Amino acid sequence: MDQDILYHLTLGSGSHDLVEMFGDVKFVCFGGTPKRMEQFAHTIMAEIGHKLPCGTTLQDICQFSYRYAMYKVGPVLSISHGMGIPSVGILLHEVIKLMYHAKVRDPVFFRIGTCGGIGYEGGTVVISEEAVDGALRNVLELTVLGKTIQRPAKLDRRLVRELKGLADPEEPYDIVTGKTMCTYDFYEGQGRLDGAFCDFTEADKMEYLERVHKHGVVNIEMESLAFAALTHHAGIKAAVVCVTLLDRLKGDQVLSPKEVLDEWQQRPTKLICRYIKRYLQLKGRISLDGHGSIAVMSPRRFKLVQQESETYD
Amino acid sequence: MDQDILYHLTLGSGSHDLVEMFGDVKFVCFGGTPKRMEQFAHTIMAEIGHKLPCGTTLQDICQFSYRYAMYKVGPVLSISHGMGIPSVGILLHEVIKLMYHAKVRDPVFFRIGTCGGIGYEGGTVVISEEAVDGALRNVLELTVLGKTIQRPAKLDRRLVRELKGLADPEEPYDIVTGKTMCTYDFYEGQGRLDGAFCDFTEADKMEYLERVHKHGVVNIEMESLAFAALTHHAGIKAAVVCVTLLDRLKGDQVLSPKEVLDEWQQRPTKLICRYIKRYLQLKGRISLDGHGSIAVMSPRRFKLVQQESETYD
Repeated sequence: MDQDILYHLTLGSGSHDLVEMFGDVKFVCFGGTPKRMEQFAHTIMAEIGHKLPCGTTLQDICQFSYRYAMYKVGPVLSISHGMGIPSVGILLHEVIKLMYHAKVRDPVFFRIGTCGGIGYEGGTVVISEEAVDGALRNVLELTVLGKTIQRPAKLDRRLVRELKGLADPEEPYDIVTGKTMCTYDFYEGQGRLDGAFCDFTEADKMEYLERVHKHGVVNIEMESLAFAALTHHAGIKAAVVCVTLLDRLKGDQVLSPKEVLDEWQQRPTKLICRYIKRYLQLKGRISLDGHGSIAVMSPRRFKLVQQESETYD
Repeated sequence: MDQDILYHLTLGSGSHDLVEMFGDVKFVCFGGTPKRMEQFAHTIMAEIGHKLPCGTTLQDICQFSYRYAMYKVGPVLSISHGMGIPSVGILLHEVIKLMYHAKVRDPVFFRIGTCGGIGYEGGTVVISEEAVDGALRNVLELTVLGKTIQRPAKLDRRLVRELKGLADPEEPYDIVTGKTMCTYDFYEGQGRLDGAFCDFTEADKMEYLERVHKHGVVNIEMESLAFAALTHHAGIKAAVVCVTLLDRLKGDQVLSPKEVLDEWQQRPTKLICRYIKRYLQLKGRISLDGHGSIAVMSPRRFKLVQQESETYD
């Protein structure tokens, strides 16, 4: 075709110089809401010491899509994906095409999200080892031309270890890894009793949650299956890092105060920022002593990252 | 439970007087983007002559959810649902609970959307008779506690006829009815060749689209299955009215200029506004001669609406 219109991003290969605009991207960070991803953009800008020209500010590149918000901070894109597999799926198709048109080599994709924990208190950070659906299958099922196909929902194991290795023991919360269950519904689909409908009992729900927990599922959310499957299919290194808002073994409703929830949501952000900063420091794109936080890392952990990062580029 | 927190709406039965806030609602209108539903709120406000107190303006009731936008104009709620079945599904659970807490009797739900036409040019208005999935099944499939369940995706037949009866023959576009296919993906799921991946040919795609068209499918979108199934399950009268942005038998990409797309998107809005206005006029809530457009309706169509509306309340 003459040009490729990335309809939901309000970008196009004919109307925009995508290489000039996005050619320097290395990390693409996704999260649910436009607000959170605007905040993430400002946070990563401070963390990596990215300077904007005098008299300029960040602008939502997709502001006229009214669907997704996208901010660019040097080598980092910060994009909101909305809720659920279809919403993140449309976005991934278009961002993968964007990376292709922009000639970006080996980008790393992160999803920064919220979730329900299974056996973990609110505020716990979960790095997904793989995604499974509500029937514990490690695949994304799609109906294509009327036929059901399956795509493995795999995530990069090394990236999981690297992120886990960046955990700061000083911080007052756990960072754990495990399987992430991804559902198409927040209420019945996640075994909640408090939706508009519910045809099962508290006992049925607990039996189900205990069963998936024994299978290795540590949290439940609504995007990881598509995120893992589509990035894996495209050969893109990707990770999913979420914070739990409650322990589903203890309840269904999110009851913590807004200020507490807001602080919890900073936790996955901190981990991803640390990863990006470390990568850029190792590549010499920002100075090692420029922003302080290197000092809190133990030499062992720093070395781990250094070794494993060598596979990039 | 003590109180019900409608988490994604930032409302709760304990923290808000939901009867006082929402007890007078009769119509709930849903659409994809916050912008479109803000515009819809202003349009319906002008159409029904709803006056705000001096010195006030409409405010997004869910502004701090950063997920959905909700505007209230007298008896009309206008809410954005994001993209895809999970996003509209979460919202429907919470809005159905909101109607229950607010003691609203017999609300009518409308989805106003955009879609791909099958055999219809861009700009055609489609009123859905029922929703089917990508395998032509007239059900929403859900995984609940690990088991697959199915909910009929039925819409109100009389409401379809009433809306069709409000078509204005003077308007330069068609208003048609038929089956609406609802998919979990915009690219592969709708047989598009222009996604990040595609494992089928143009001929495969055309064979599929022709096949679903013969089955009575006139358009494809991404929310109607959940919209039909959840409202039907709750016993809520509902309709889906979308405008086509292109004829999928002729292409995959949305190529029309923004101004044209914007004008097309007003078309379902006009029809729904006409319906709501007529209902309120018949109920004596607004005057018959207050806003002019009654004059363009034929007596026959007016009578049809009047007769059939008698079943409400």
